[in-house]
Amino acid sequence: MGFSDRLEGYTGKVREVLESAEVDIGDEVEIVVDESKKFRGILMSRYELADPDFIVLKLPNGYNLGIRFREKIKVEKLSETKKPIFKPLGKPQHLPSLPKVTIIGTGGTIASRIDYRTGAVRPVLTVEDLLSIMPELASIAELDASILFSMFSEDMTPREWSMMAEKIDQYIKKGVDGVVIAHGTDTMGYSAAALSFALQKPPIPIVLVGAQRSSDRPSSDSATNLIAAVKVAGHAPFGEVCVAMHHSYSDDIIAIHRGTRVRKNHTSSRDAFKSVNTEPVAFYKNGEIIVNRKDLNTRYSGQYVFNPKFSDKALLLKFFPGMSSEIIEDIWMRGYRGIIIEGSGLGHVARRLLPMLKKILDDGIFVGMTSQCIYGRVNMRVYSTGRDLLRIGVTPLDDMLPETAYVKLSWALAQSTDIEEIVKIMLTPLAGEIGERSLP
Amino acid sequence: MGFSDRLEGYTGKVREVLESAEVDIGDEVEIVVDESKKFRGILMSRYELADPDFIVLKLPNGYNLGIRFREKIKVEKLSETKKPIFKPLGKPQHLPSLPKVTIIGTGGTIASRIDYRTGAVRPVLTVEDLLSIMPELASIAELDASILFSMFSEDMTPREWSMMAEKIDQYIKKGVDGVVIAHGTDTMGYSAAALSFALQKPPIPIVLVGAQRSSDRPSSDSATNLIAAVKVAGHAPFGEVCVAMHHSYSDDIIAIHRGTRVRKNHTSSRDAFKSVNTEPVAFYKNGEIIVNRKDLNTRYSGQYVFNPKFSDKALLLKFFPGMSSEIIEDIWMRGYRGIIIEGSGLGHVARRLLPMLKKILDDGIFVGMTSQCIYGRVNMRVYSTGRDLLRIGVTPLDDMLPETAYVKLSWALAQSTDIEEIVKIMLTPLAGEIGERSLP
Repeated sequence: MGFSDRLEGYTGKVREVLESAEVDIGDEVEIVVDESKKFRGILMSRYELADPDFIVLKLPNGYNLGIRFREKIKVEKLSETKKPIFKPLGKPQHLPSLPKVTIIGTGGTIASRIDYRTGAVRPVLTVEDLLSIMPELASIAELDASILFSMFSEDMTPREWSMMAEKIDQYIKKGVDGVVIAHGTDTMGYSAAALSFALQKPPIPIVLVGAQRSSDRPSSDSATNLIAAVKVAGHAPFGEVCVAMHHSYSDDIIAIHRGTRVRKNHTSSRDAFKSVNTEPVAFYKNGEIIVNRKDLNTRYSGQYVFNPKFSDKALLLKFFPGMSSEIIEDIWMRGYRGIIIEGSGLGHVARRLLPMLKKILDDGIFVGMTSQCIYGRVNMRVYSTGRDLLRIGVTPLDDMLPETAYVKLSWALAQSTDIEEIVKIMLTPLAGEIGERSLP
Repeated sequence: MGFSDRLEGYTGKVREVLESAEVDIGDEVEIVVDESKKFRGILMSRYELADPDFIVLKLPNGYNLGIRFREKIKVEKLSETKKPIFKPLGKPQHLPSLPKVTIIGTGGTIASRIDYRTGAVRPVLTVEDLLSIMPELASIAELDASILFSMFSEDMTPREWSMMAEKIDQYIKKGVDGVVIAHGTDTMGYSAAALSFALQKPPIPIVLVGAQRSSDRPSSDSATNLIAAVKVAGHAPFGEVCVAMHHSYSDDIIAIHRGTRVRKNHTSSRDAFKSVNTEPVAFYKNGEIIVNRKDLNTRYSGQYVFNPKFSDKALLLKFFPGMSSEIIEDIWMRGYRGIIIEGSGLGHVARRLLPMLKKILDDGIFVGMTSQCIYGRVNMRVYSTGRDLLRIGVTPLDDMLPETAYVKLSWALAQSTDIEEIVKIMLTPLAGEIGERSLP
């Protein structure tokens, strides 16, 4: 795909109307529908498989709008495209006062389809690319961009968490004012937790950002999320690992979630990411950062601890009614050193699993309890099943997210081989992962 | 514990005040706080470990209220308790027009601590017990009560699902107008799904009900939930398997959730149960049932299908970033016939797991995909990982809850040994478990 294909992706009647108006992809156009509704924006290309009945415009606010074709439609060219879109602008001129922000690409929808002006699928390789398609970024920060991985986030492992942490630490040492990680959304919550433990109380904001809708779709959130992420990375007063994603279904607020407390709670919605059991760190609205918590690590607090090691001997196990102890025995045999259980309710499993759990606990395997309810906290002193689980040595993990508990265990197992030390690490709040017990 | 212990559970200053007012557990009292706030209700006993600074009253609306002790508190007796509380009332007299509702106890907070008047822990054994403590039930339905199990719900297995289904079918054949299942909340969502597949389009409402707070706590939801459940079982116009639990944090609305679409989403909150990806079947408010859906099976629709068999060869497996294919291999070796995966995002797992998944699929094991996002639906045609999973034979399960998908698979495996037939069963909506695809 490229600009050589005039009106790329448009077919049939829609194409005819666009051709007779002598417009091309990238032109600024005005479209009048039913002689009353008027839309102005840049004409974007379409994918082969997209609904052929739509014309897509990039509106001045950065959003894409799909206009359904109908008989009463009028298209008028306002100005020519400035082709080629990806013409390098040369080293951009910045005001010396702008903060330095580096963007690290790891893959995912946001990094691979960032070209929201033309809809073409291509990875973002350089800061020039970024600025040519999102020129407003130049007024927010002095940007630098690089690619670390180009992978689907479901393929990431503890090894990639370590590599990301190391790369970020290098940039911190170079003196950047903020880091943005473009990441696939599937496991962005896990990676955010991992970076929270690997880079504790960092001197600068480390902001993971993704997109739920690719930029060829009218409802894409790529641009708005990335702009918020760069703003927070460069300008926020805190040094925290966080995730920047749409807060609600409406367009204008981006929530900045704590890295250890955020979860992808919807498969496709723009507001899929939610802070669980706590409030977001901040919000981004109309170009401003609104700080939302008092317990934040400030920039350059001097408390930075860097430890990028993770073990692959941790495991996350969700309890279900028919679960048999064979599964736990197999995990033991495979040499795993720790298990996070997603128990039921306040932190329970079937009593029939207790003898096998006791065996592996006696063998020095760590077993931590979280709840598959997702919301709320485990409390294993209410019912006898919980008390018996405590008695055999299961560690209750309070209101930690199961996913965060699994990531923290991967990290803890790389810090120590002593089970008592591992239990202590798991119970000590290190990156906001455990909430204060609220009054009943 | 019992009435022989005067002012059971009250200690210190609180006990002194109560003693000097010459009141006892079960008396109707008036408490005036700070010379201004007045409360009337029945004085309840306390547990040994409860906060000693509270006096607990059962208010006329059935709720318990905890009043914090302070210096300016006045207690006055209005009337004596009618002891003993559990004095049998004899066979209750009912209006002949009342529907017949049977309550089946299986365990859990609601069945074991139903005595919300005195706070004493005891199982509910007879309808006389129930009516003596919740007399309002006598005006809702002609009640019958029995105990099937007394177990924590985390100990239930597919075997117990079958036994519950068989017991309910017996009552249906006896001609009752509704069934209420008192159930522990930990796995009530799984059991509700199981009964939905075992008793499809039942001629009467089958209502599971639990309590998040035991009845000795001021905030107990036992009474309100049970009253709503009995009302729906006896009077609702639909024949559906559903769950009756508090809708919101406020006291006055009980949501009636569809059995295949409900999830315990909080460890302890009264409004922990949520309908996921859909609306509740109905609401109960101020004694009235408000039907909330048009797609309900009506009472005595004549479409009832009873099939109580479940297999224990199904398994629920949550994907996590470090997952290795060893886990899947072990499941295969253990003879499981089907796996429901809680994938990431739109329904993905790491690509490194594909060769092992292909092996077990080629061996005739069913593999179904759901999402750990909980909300939303899987769509495996958007990214190449999803397309590759489809290509090797993974079955995408749309917006089915992972827990419901696991229960349905347990049921499907008991219906057939033919993999194509099992895939077909999994993809066919049988009890509202798959939602219609909404327009983009």
